[in-house]
Amino acid sequence: METALPERITSELEFFVRYAETDAMGVVHHASYVVYLEEARSHYARERGHSYAEFEASGFYLVVSDLQVRYAAPARYGDSLRAQCWIEELKSRQITFGYAIYRQSDGVLCVSAQTRHLCVDKQGQLARIPVQWRTWLG
Amino acid sequence: METALPERITSELEFFVRYAETDAMGVVHHASYVVYLEEARSHYARERGHSYAEFEASGFYLVVSDLQVRYAAPARYGDSLRAQCWIEELKSRQITFGYAIYRQSDGVLCVSAQTRHLCVDKQGQLARIPVQWRTWLG
Amino acid sequence: METALPERITSELEFFVRYAETDAMGVVHHASYVVYLEEARSHYARERGHSYAEFEASGFYLVVSDLQVRYAAPARYGDSLRAQCWIEELKSRQITFGYAIYRQSDGVLCVSAQTRHLCVDKQGQLARIPVQWRTWLG
Amino acid sequence: METALPERITSELEFFVRYAETDAMGVVHHASYVVYLEEARSHYARERGHSYAEFEASGFYLVVSDLQVRYAAPARYGDSLRAQCWIEELKSRQITFGYAIYRQSDGVLCVSAQTRHLCVDKQGQLARIPVQWRTWLG
Repeated sequence: METALPERITSELEFFVRYAETDAMGVVHHASYVVYLEEARSHYARERGHSYAEFEASGFYLVVSDLQVRYAAPARYGDSLRAQCWIEELKSRQITFGYAIYRQSDGVLCVSAQTRHLCVDKQGQLARIPVQWRTWLG
Repeated sequence: METALPERITSELEFFVRYAETDAMGVVHHASYVVYLEEARSHYARERGHSYAEFEASGFYLVVSDLQVRYAAPARYGDSLRAQCWIEELKSRQITFGYAIYRQSDGVLCVSAQTRHLCVDKQGQLARIPVQWRTWLG
Repeated sequence: METALPERITSELEFFVRYAETDAMGVVHHASYVVYLEEARSHYARERGHSYAEFEASGFYLVVSDLQVRYAAPARYGDSLRAQCWIEELKSRQITFGYAIYRQSDGVLCVSAQTRHLCVDKQGQLARIPVQWRTWLG
Repeated sequence: METALPERITSELEFFVRYAETDAMGVVHHASYVVYLEEARSHYARERGHSYAEFEASGFYLVVSDLQVRYAAPARYGDSLRAQCWIEELKSRQITFGYAIYRQSDGVLCVSAQTRHLCVDKQGQLARIPVQWRTWLG
C-alpha cells in the first residue's frame, strides 16, 4: 500500500561542521554526511511532533536497508550547513527519505541522498509501520 | 606569562544527541563526548566573535596535548544536552579549557572535562598565541 | 578510455568490529560500514604494492563522488568481518570500487556496496589517473 | 580489595590508521585515539582468552568513569600503530587500564593514556567483578 503524498513536507536543519568530521583532505569526510542524513531524519521527526526515540520506545525500529549519496561539492570546518529532509515514498513496511545538504554561505549543494528503511519489531521481524506513525506524513 | 581571569566567561551550546553517537550499551559512547568538547570550544570561539577556523587561517593551530574526562551520568539518543565551556588557564603558548555537559531534561551533570592545547605554527613549532587572539578572554 | 579487466583482483581485509562502531540498536551503525569500505580500499592498494598515502603524496586525490550501500544483515561488537574489495570500472579520470562485507562466523553477507571516485589534483581540478597508478589493476 | 600484580601482562595490537580517523590538520584526530584505546582493551581481553562481548553476555558491563590521555606526537593516515594495553589496578568493583600507542615506523610514542572502569550489572548498579573475569589478570 503506497500513500499518495499530496504535498511534500520538508524539514530543514542548520548546523556547523565539527572539526572531528573533517579529514586529511581538509574537507568533511564522506562518512560524516551519513551521520548528517540521520540527524536530518531525527530533526524531521521532531518537527513533525514525534521523535524517533518515541518510535523506538513504542517497540519498532526503522533499519536502513539502502543508502545512496551523491557528493557534489565539499564542505569545510567552520561551514554552516543546511540539511533538507523529506519523505520520498511511504509503503506499509518501508519508508524512503530524500535529502539535500547545502552550504549556507553560498547556497551550493554539497550532497544529495536517499535512504530506505524497513520497519521491524523488537524481534527483528518485518512489521507494518503503525498507523499513528504514518502521521509523520502530515 | 599567565593572565589573571577577572571573571570567567562561559559559553553554552545546546544540541541533540545523534543516533550515531550512541553505542550497544544504549548510551552515548564515551568517545563521542570528546567531539562534543571540541564543538563546545568551537562554539566558545564563535560566541567570542572569532571562529577557530579564522585562527587556523591566520597560520596557527591549537593542538590538544592533554585530555581529562570524568563520566558522571549517561546520556541517550533523543536527549538534549547543554555543554558549558570556559577558559581555565591562559599562558603565552598554551591554553586550558574546562567543560561541563548537562542533560537538559533534568539538569544532571553527564561529563566534566579539561583539555590543554599548545599553540603551534604551520611548521608545527611551539608558538606564542597571537595577541589579537588573546581577546578570546574578554 | 575504459580498460578491460581480464580478471578481477579482489583484496580481503579481516578485522573486528569495534565497540564505538555500534549503536543503541546493538548493531554496527550504518555509517561505520562506510569507514570499513574506505579501509578496504586502503587495504586493496597496500596489497597491490602502492598505498593510497603514496598516491596522495604524488599530488593526486581520489574524491568520492557516489556511494551506494545495501545493508543485508547486521553485525555486532565482537564479530570478525571480512571485507572484499575490487575495481569494478577504471576510466581515465574515475574509478569505481565494489565491495562485499561478510560475517566470518557464518559467512553471511552483511553489506554490498559501490563507491565511485574522481581523480583530482592539488588544485581540485579533475585529472587523469597517472599511468603508474593504473597498475593497481594488475 | 586490591590485588597485587606480580607481573604486568601487556597486550599489543597493531593496526593501520584509517583515513576517516584523520582531520583537517592532516593528522589523526584526538578523539580517534579514544577508540583505539577501547579496541586495545578489546584485544587485551581476546588475548587473555575471554572477549569483552562474553563479559557483557554474562550480564555485566565495564562503564568508563575516567579518561586521561596525553598526546605526545601525531600519527598520520598510512601509519601503522602499535597499541600496548595493561591493567594498572584491579579493585573489586573497578579496573584501571594503562596504554601506550607507538608509531611503528620510528617507535615514537604518540599517546599514553589511562581509563578507569566501573563494573555494573544490567540494572546499572555497581557490582563486584565476577571471580572468573578476574583471571584476565593472569
